[in-house]
Parts: sequence; structure tokens; C-alpha cells
Amino acid sequence: MTSPPQRFWMPGPVAVHPEVMAAMQQPMIGHRSPAALALRARIDLGMRKLFQTRRPVVIATCSATGLMEAAIRSGVRDSVLCVVSGVFGERFARIAERCDKEVIRLHVPRGEALEPDLLATMLDGPPVDAVTLVHAETSTGAQQPVAELLRLLRPLHDVVTIVDAVSTVAAAPVDPAGWGADVVLTGSQKALGLPPGLAFATVSDRFLERAAEQQDRGLYLDLVALHEDAVAGRWSQTPALPQLFALDVQLERIALEGLDARWARHRSMREMVENWVASHGRCALFATAGRRADAVTALRLAPGRSAAGVVHTLDAEGWQIATTRDDPEDRIIRIGHMGDARPEDLAELLMTIEPRL
Amino acid sequence: MTSPPQRFWMPGPVAVHPEVMAAMQQPMIGHRSPAALALRARIDLGMRKLFQTRRPVVIATCSATGLMEAAIRSGVRDSVLCVVSGVFGERFARIAERCDKEVIRLHVPRGEALEPDLLATMLDGPPVDAVTLVHAETSTGAQQPVAELLRLLRPLHDVVTIVDAVSTVAAAPVDPAGWGADVVLTGSQKALGLPPGLAFATVSDRFLERAAEQQDRGLYLDLVALHEDAVAGRWSQTPALPQLFALDVQLERIALEGLDARWARHRSMREMVENWVASHGRCALFATAGRRADAVTALRLAPGRSAAGVVHTLDAEGWQIATTRDDPEDRIIRIGHMGDARPEDLAELLMTIEPRL
Repeated sequence: MTSPPQRFWMPGPVAVHPEVMAAMQQPMIGHRSPAALALRARIDLGMRKLFQTRRPVVIATCSATGLMEAAIRSGVRDSVLCVVSGVFGERFARIAERCDKEVIRLHVPRGEALEPDLLATMLDGPPVDAVTLVHAETSTGAQQPVAELLRLLRPLHDVVTIVDAVSTVAAAPVDPAGWGADVVLTGSQKALGLPPGLAFATVSDRFLERAAEQQDRGLYLDLVALHEDAVAGRWSQTPALPQLFALDVQLERIALEGLDARWARHRSMREMVENWVASHGRCALFATAGRRADAVTALRLAPGRSAAGVVHTLDAEGWQIATTRDDPEDRIIRIGHMGDARPEDLAELLMTIEPRL
Repeated sequence: MTSPPQRFWMPGPVAVHPEVMAAMQQPMIGHRSPAALALRARIDLGMRKLFQTRRPVVIATCSATGLMEAAIRSGVRDSVLCVVSGVFGERFARIAERCDKEVIRLHVPRGEALEPDLLATMLDGPPVDAVTLVHAETSTGAQQPVAELLRLLRPLHDVVTIVDAVSTVAAAPVDPAGWGADVVLTGSQKALGLPPGLAFATVSDRFLERAAEQQDRGLYLDLVALHEDAVAGRWSQTPALPQLFALDVQLERIALEGLDARWARHRSMREMVENWVASHGRCALFATAGRRADAVTALRLAPGRSAAGVVHTLDAEGWQIATTRDDPEDRIIRIGHMGDARPEDLAELLMTIEPRL
């Protein structure tokens, strides 16, 4: 089954392949039935490959924001350093404030990534017991050098790290253990190419030990309980079955494509957009060169042009791309080249956009 | 489109009608798009009818347990009285304990409902600032007389009430305002007849005022934020779109059937099981007469019979019913006659079960 040429290029939710959509038509099953346990076992194996981990993968019925909250609530004792370079970095900070934690924001100009030397200067600042970081900031298209940043944090005593990898898991390499990241999380409706409704994470033993001491983790978003379910291979809460059926099929499709080939496909789409911008110069890449995400690109229009106007014009012709919320100048458009997006379809989108810039 | 004879009779997840399943095949949309806002507006209107309320209906991507946690975290100050007569009553108590609240359990023998005179004796007990109650306890098939119980609580100063109506909203009348219930909640995969992935609630102004003072509500399961989204008709988090598409169609189907007719259908199925048990006497209804839920029945097998054995035998023949987890004697089987279940199909199930009892 091949999919029709893609016209839906939001940076989440993303277009879902017809085979994956069709998988959602499977009849309901009991979530404690042998079929549901076998489904979990298959999904766990596949998700470990995407997360590049040997640890069981937490699966929760919520958006990625739900697991961001779970990580904050379960793992932050008193104070957390939140690296903020866009909407999702700021979201960690807001969640932490609303969980009554002390929040220190490390602001990075939008479109830029946090560089290790800036982080190094923060290490003499007020002590924190956790750090949050967004791998690829979907609102700006900038990607943090997570490995180098987390290397700096490793000497700190008893500081846990929480990484939002929503636009990277399944689109680019991640390495929870190599990075020394305590929590790495993602959602279903971005690089995984599924409908929204599920979120996933890996959690370190160090994090779980600390979390076990937190007295107000709740139950639904308790990473300890969610991890216990992952270890036991069971579903304590009724999961979003259609999305699980879809994921089961999507993991087969990803295995068929091959993870290296999948990463290369996203990288090639990032490069395609870079080359395209260089070729016409009517807009600029918003993220700094060398710090651009493979699965999402933000473009800055020329002065006086309206991002909302461009998005609206394309929408009227049946093409969906996105603006971004934290853009008072109305000059940023965003393209999600995630999931199952194909370079040949992206080329068509770029040709369509070019005269509208 | 008619559905094939039903053989899946779990008390959640439940069988989903083919038309509702097919609705999940709609392509993804941006959750801030006009289409997504129009979808929310339509769903809100339909859900208000099911909840019998004029208030906007909270919609969250999680199981009903997620909204139970949201209600506890957002609305309980220090201590809560949890009425426990089965798995879901106990779940409220566990969530509250894990949110670091003081919990007082009012235990009711399993299979029985809490009667007003027993609740009255508790009112002189230690003060609490919230009460949790399960309308129909899906693990026992017993239904609490919520209206009468909440009437007793009304004179109490500053006590909020949280009602799990998971197996009743869309299957039987509920009346949040008439009851004086501050939160009434349900999930998608029970009486609504949808796949799992969504939860719904109505929330009173009194509850919202109190919740606004709680400093650690978080963001994803914050009933204040969720209610603000309901009022504004927007989606702040990416919702489980397939289930929303399914709900949109299901609300049309429910309107076509008529709410009174839908309630009558479930009532008739409860009566059918009652009459069937009376006709053969090989098992007993677990819930007290007059306190039985319309959408789920628990049956107690004769001494020496194994519930797991009966469920297993039926399963081997392609019929799904359920045991229950808190049944050390292994004598309870449960049938969910929820959602779109038809009396004629239930009759066939009962005929199939009878020789196995």
C-alpha cells in the first residue's frame, strides 16, 4: 500500500500512512488479555530499538506533555534548571512551577541551541536537583547538542536530567545511556508518524530510586508505576488501543525501512530544505547552521511578509504547514518533515511554497 | 451499517460499532485548526446532553483514572472520604494517598451500595474536605443512590464531591447539578462505546474556585486548565484525534437513538439478566436488588465453580466476558452490556453461558 502525495506538513500531528491508519480498525481487546500482553511485548522490543536502549520503554496514554509532567513530578525534589529556547523548553518550566517546584530558566535566544560553554557558566549558579532540556525544539527547528551538554552535567552530584526528544526519537539517533540522560521522552504524533494519544519514555535506575522517595507522585502520571508496568509487561490502566495497534504495524514498517535509512531520509529532507533556501534566498533558516533538527524546519520570512498569510494561502490550496505561537513578528513558518514523509513529496511542497514567499 | 452479532462483552473496553470504528480513518488535522475547533464545539454540545448539564465538558487524553487523579489533585485540600465498595472506589483512595492526601475509607461490603443511613453515621466522623463516590461500581455491578447520598452531604460546609460515573454516563441518567456533584467523570471505552483514550468531566464553579488555590495542580491533569480549554473551546494539548473523530460520529448515533431510548435499552438488558438468573438459578446476581447498574452485571457462581474456568471456556469459543480482580474465591463473572450492545445479542450470550455455569 503506498500513500498518496503528502499535503499535510504540520510539525505534529503528522500525516499517518494508510497501512498504519488501517491498523486502527482492529476490534477491541481486553487490556489484561494475552493478546494485549503480547502486543505490549512486541511494542517494547521495537521501541527499545528506536530509543536505542536496553531498558523497557514506558508507554502512557497521554500527550508527551503528560510524561513531561510525570518526569517533573516524579523526579524533581525542590528546584530545576529549565533550558528554554522555545515553546517546549518553556513548557517544562511552566509544568515545574505548577508542580510547586523552584524553577531557574536558562534562556537561549530562539532559533539558537544551548552551547556547552554557556551551560558551563551556569554550573556555578544556584544549586538545582534536576535539569530539563529539549533535544529538537519543534517551535524553532533548533537542536541542542545533548551529548555534549549532558557530559558537563555528569560530574554534578545528584542532578537528574530530563530530555524531551519528541521530534527526534525515530527520526534521528538518541542515546539515553550514552548521554547519561535519566529520562528521555517522546509522543506518538511526531517522528513516529502515528496519531496522537500515546507517549513513551525511558527512565534510569537513578531516577527511579529518587522518584520512589517523592510522596506525591500520584498514580496515573507516576513514572515509578509506569516503569513497573513496562518491566512487568502489563497495562495497569486501559491504554489507547487504536494507537497501540497502529504502533505495532508502524514498528514493523520502521524495521523494514531500517533505522539508519530512516534517519538518513530525515537528514536528507533537512538538507533539501537548506539547499532550497540557499538556492532562492527569499527566506532564511531560523535555526543556526549545524544546530538544525532533521525532522522539522522553521523558516524566517523576509521583513514585511506575514507567516499567517503564507500558511493561509497554502491552506486554501490544500497544503498544511504551520506558523509558531511565540512569534510576535509573524514571520516564522514551520514544516514538519517527520514520520513517513518522503523527500519527493517535500520537493513538491517546497516548489509550491516558493512563489508564495 | 449494522454490526455483526456481538461476542465481546467485557465491561470495558467494549465492542465498538463499525461506523464508529470507520470514523477513526479520517486524516489527521492540526489541533489548533478551524476543523479541530469546530469538532470540539460539536462534541461539547453532544457531551452536555449525555452529562445532562449546561456546563462545558472537560475532555482529556487519558483514561478515566487520569481525570480521577486530576480531580483529587486539583480539588482535595487535606483529607478526603473515599467510599470503597470495589476496585474503582479503592482506586480513588489509592490515588489520593499517592497525592499525599489524608484518606478515610468508608468500606461498603462488595456487591452492596452505600446506603444513606450509613453515610449519615459518618458525618460525625473526622472532618474531610472532599468525598469520592463511584456511581456504578464496574467491579461489582452495584450502583450507589448518588442523589440521596449527595443530598446528605449538601449541608456540610466546604466539602466537594467527586463522582466516578464511568459506567453510567450515556447508559443511565446522571444529573451533576441536581445531585450537587462538583465533579462527574467518565471514560470513552465504557458506556460511550468508543475505543479507550479519552476521559470527560463536568466541574462545578465551587470546585474550580477551590482548585485555583491549590499550588501543585500541574498542567496536564489540572482541572482548572482543562476546564478553561473547555470554556474556550480549544485544545491546549494535542488530543487523541482518532477517538475524537469516533466520538463525533457516536454522538450523532446516540442522538439518533435518543437518550431515553438508550437508557431504556440498557435498563432492559439489566432486567433481561435478572430474569434469566431467576429462571435457572444456577448463579446469583452479585449486587443487591434495587441497587444494580444498568450497563454492567456481576454474577456469583455456585460454590465450587470457577469464574476463571467459565471465562476461559467461553473465550475458547470466541466469547469474551470478564472475571474481576478482587475476587479471591474466583466465583464472580462480569458482563458489560454497555455502549451499543443489543438485547438480542445479549440473549444469545446468556444462552451460551447457561450450560457452562
